[in-house]
Amino acid sequence: MTKTPKTAPWLLTPGPLTTSPTVKSAMLRDWGSRDAEFIAINRRVRERLVELAGGTGTHVCVPLQGSGTFAVEATLATLIPPAGKAVILVNGAYGRRMAAIFDYLRRDYRVLETPEHVPNDVQALAQCLDTDAAITHVVMVQCETTTGILNPLEAVGELCRRTGKALIVDAMSAFGALPLDARETRFEALIASSNKCLEGVPGIGFAIVRQGALDGSRGNCHSLSLDLYEQHRYMESSGQWRFTPPTHVLAAFDQALLEHAEEGGVQGRGARYEKNCERLLQGMHDLGFAALLPRKMQAPIITTYYQPADPRFDFSAFYAALSERGYVIYPGKLTQAETFRIGCIGRVGVAQMDGVLAAIAAVLDEMGVENRSPDAGVA
Amino acid sequence: MTKTPKTAPWLLTPGPLTTSPTVKSAMLRDWGSRDAEFIAINRRVRERLVELAGGTGTHVCVPLQGSGTFAVEATLATLIPPAGKAVILVNGAYGRRMAAIFDYLRRDYRVLETPEHVPNDVQALAQCLDTDAAITHVVMVQCETTTGILNPLEAVGELCRRTGKALIVDAMSAFGALPLDARETRFEALIASSNKCLEGVPGIGFAIVRQGALDGSRGNCHSLSLDLYEQHRYMESSGQWRFTPPTHVLAAFDQALLEHAEEGGVQGRGARYEKNCERLLQGMHDLGFAALLPRKMQAPIITTYYQPADPRFDFSAFYAALSERGYVIYPGKLTQAETFRIGCIGRVGVAQMDGVLAAIAAVLDEMGVENRSPDAGVA
Repeated sequence: MTKTPKTAPWLLTPGPLTTSPTVKSAMLRDWGSRDAEFIAINRRVRERLVELAGGTGTHVCVPLQGSGTFAVEATLATLIPPAGKAVILVNGAYGRRMAAIFDYLRRDYRVLETPEHVPNDVQALAQCLDTDAAITHVVMVQCETTTGILNPLEAVGELCRRTGKALIVDAMSAFGALPLDARETRFEALIASSNKCLEGVPGIGFAIVRQGALDGSRGNCHSLSLDLYEQHRYMESSGQWRFTPPTHVLAAFDQALLEHAEEGGVQGRGARYEKNCERLLQGMHDLGFAALLPRKMQAPIITTYYQPADPRFDFSAFYAALSERGYVIYPGKLTQAETFRIGCIGRVGVAQMDGVLAAIAAVLDEMGVENRSPDAGVA
Repeated sequence: MTKTPKTAPWLLTPGPLTTSPTVKSAMLRDWGSRDAEFIAINRRVRERLVELAGGTGTHVCVPLQGSGTFAVEATLATLIPPAGKAVILVNGAYGRRMAAIFDYLRRDYRVLETPEHVPNDVQALAQCLDTDAAITHVVMVQCETTTGILNPLEAVGELCRRTGKALIVDAMSAFGALPLDARETRFEALIASSNKCLEGVPGIGFAIVRQGALDGSRGNCHSLSLDLYEQHRYMESSGQWRFTPPTHVLAAFDQALLEHAEEGGVQGRGARYEKNCERLLQGMHDLGFAALLPRKMQAPIITTYYQPADPRFDFSAFYAALSERGYVIYPGKLTQAETFRIGCIGRVGVAQMDGVLAAIAAVLDEMGVENRSPDAGVA
């Protein structure tokens, strides 16, 4: 069996992901963060991100150093005032993380939770908004990478529009591949990062925020570093970042956005991921694995499978053997069932999907795991 | 006149800085953040940083995504409990920024300020500690890049030891080139970043914290993202970062630390910067510029000069012309005088110092600025 060299595995995870050689090569230069050229890159990146969200003229892009979670915390803390109240739609780890952020903020919130394999409950949300007049903001995760489940963005958006609530969307793992357009969904803010479907390298998160909401948010934030109001004000007045930006990461992001446009933007990128996802689900089905989600709930981002019940299956050994063959997959994050995940985003195509499927078949053979069902006995 | 190509200027600033080609090349690979190899890099970087601070066995390294300011805020908020009280020694923008962080935290503090060209006042601090029993922590900046001034670390450290106060040092622009050793100076924490004297690329800050102080800090922090206690706990238990790390930046940092060791560690790195600084100060003196600081207060990090009073001197044009010639300098940050700064850190040597001096001489000739003194009339 041929082994892909250990030095460059394909990252089939929710991120960090495999990026193109040209994106990485954009990091081979040092930039002064106050220099005209860098300021021009920064402007281009911000404008392009607003455009991708359909927010030109209504929304602004505020980038922030750090991981996506930093941008999520910054956005919630800046936009939801201490006197506000949020309802958080939870069906996985990222929804729960937003609740944890509210605990740190000591601000009022409630959680509407559904099981991890069930989309957000729009009817329950309607009832909640109906009975709790204190609620000012609705917070949701577009694609919950805990399972890869797609949440009902349009329906929640429509309900928020009708009831006059502000909608904040954690679009981390979806932005750039799944549609989310300010002209169609009236959101107050969406949050994403450089290293998911936009295929940059990690180190920068950003929020696309309705200008009016940001203008009214002065003094809300609990943290100097995470204050998006001040971050935006400084950037608007100088073109520069308030604090040292990860210059190389931004240069790579600029290149990544260029390649995203070349691929046909959200539609083109989404189509490739859709093909990857389709091939992966079919192949895993053919290998005898059970997927967690029904097809219509499955976003083309990351797929979740039950671990085989067969005692000869050992996830750590399985993971290591696949990594050895050049494919990095991802452990499960479910609280209720033993699962694992395989991503279909990043600079990968059907060739890599076929590759990981062949590797999985070979590893299972070596392990002697004939029955891949989660509930059947030993084969 | 030969011009250095516009595409790769020398960055003579307080950061981001010029890094070596090999540091940048370390970013040409994508890493899975949960993979064994990445975990090994992370461990190596953290251990090496503790070693550089002389803290092996007593201190731990907690890295954090984002700029240095993120790490400063995280450290102050995690280590100084809501019931604590800090005295902040201020003689520039970075001291003032720490006071701004305390305003966000709504925690008690007082400021002991000296003018920007005057080091921290140890006698005033002694008096303050003597009269205000509520003070638990002393916070200072080792080298204040506002001017490049060196603050009296040893004397403050000795006073803290004697009075039993915890010392937190913003060592951002000094760590890796100026000595700061836990075996000699009893500090609770020092804070620095990947992209100053350690010559990595920007995107990661870190604190070297006394283990006991960190252990007692649970629940202090105001922010999920910035909670160093939780960041450390997660990393200790898994070897992984709590939230997606800037993987490429960490790989570059690992390479930068290798090159730092090859240069002879703190001593070797400091000696090169000292040579750079000496050459720069002498050259600027010979060109007729007045340095802000007397030589003994000058850290070999960044140098500050008064702008010539000659009306033919225009800083924007001066900056642009130097940039055009391949040297990026830095504007002044003083509140009281028109100044500019030239850094001597990063992957630069005396050849670059000679280069920028020649460029300055040429640009001044072109501008017709014959008298470079800050207070003399037009030549």
